[in-house]
Amino acid sequence: MSTNTASEIKMTWQIGERMYILGIDPGLSRCGYAVIEAAPRGKGKAVAMGVVTTPPAMETPKRLALLRTDLQELLAEYRPAAVAVERIFFYKNRSTAVGVAQASGVILAEAIASGATAIEYSPSEIKAVIAGDGTADKKQMQYMVQTLLNLKETPKPADAADAAAVALCYLAYNPARKNVSTPLGLK
Amino acid sequence: MSTNTASEIKMTWQIGERMYILGIDPGLSRCGYAVIEAAPRGKGKAVAMGVVTTPPAMETPKRLALLRTDLQELLAEYRPAAVAVERIFFYKNRSTAVGVAQASGVILAEAIASGATAIEYSPSEIKAVIAGDGTADKKQMQYMVQTLLNLKETPKPADAADAAAVALCYLAYNPARKNVSTPLGLK
Repeated sequence: MSTNTASEIKMTWQIGERMYILGIDPGLSRCGYAVIEAAPRGKGKAVAMGVVTTPPAMETPKRLALLRTDLQELLAEYRPAAVAVERIFFYKNRSTAVGVAQASGVILAEAIASGATAIEYSPSEIKAVIAGDGTADKKQMQYMVQTLLNLKETPKPADAADAAAVALCYLAYNPARKNVSTPLGLK
Repeated sequence: MSTNTASEIKMTWQIGERMYILGIDPGLSRCGYAVIEAAPRGKGKAVAMGVVTTPPAMETPKRLALLRTDLQELLAEYRPAAVAVERIFFYKNRSTAVGVAQASGVILAEAIASGATAIEYSPSEIKAVIAGDGTADKKQMQYMVQTLLNLKETPKPADAADAAAVALCYLAYNPARKNVSTPLGLK
């Protein structure tokens, strides 16, 4: 008899069961998202990709509240097992970095509140995992995302492709497996 | 007959009616809060002051979710008309600034979702409004907070006193008035 907790069970992918990962490229003006269905060997299937935008002229608290509502809708619709978010660093884009960090805070808190696992990956980590090179450029990344998702062309818009890379990074660390049952303590 | 909207009416303080302002000194490890009841002439009465803490060893998304829950409880208990939050700048405390910005994002989004007004004030603005000097030191600020709240001693802990200063800054801009009715278009 398994004594796994609900969250541990959720992490174990089974044949015929859909496990969704929500990848997020956080932002206040544009927040890219990608819902990826886990497939074996670190691959995935794009289920939904898009960008949540908020009006630049609107006050920041209201923009954050809009983002919160949109994210709650995404979480309710797809019920992702995990939400993977690109980590913010302060040294780049200083002028917009506070807004991006505030947006990522809202996203991470909502993800946990929805019952999902939530995790942040740094840009260089995502590049290293997806393209095998922490300094990979945008083109290399888009090519890898296209390949891993088995798409005919580069996913657009760029924010959504970036979000897909974050979700695929999560899947690389937590691949879907064909286990019918998982030994206790193993993931 | 008044055609004021609900939110405009909420901003108009009336005799016998309690209007609460929630001031927040945002943080992930320690988040100071102060619930201040509006009193005439920019003064206020301290209703509740404290600090929301989250365990440093816990992962950031879970800490943000804890903060979210605690804030929702504060908002539900006091139903503040406004939530005033100290604005984050990136040049100071770079190592903790992302976490502070993420925390402030959660707070601002929850504030709006609760139906409150939400606003950010910069540290120098708060100092200028409360102590008449944008470079006022901690001691001057604590003295002014103590005076404006008519307290016998300096409010503690320091994070809660800082949060009270943010709430009092809001009240300085939006003073409680003894209006029984407010002409349309005036606040």
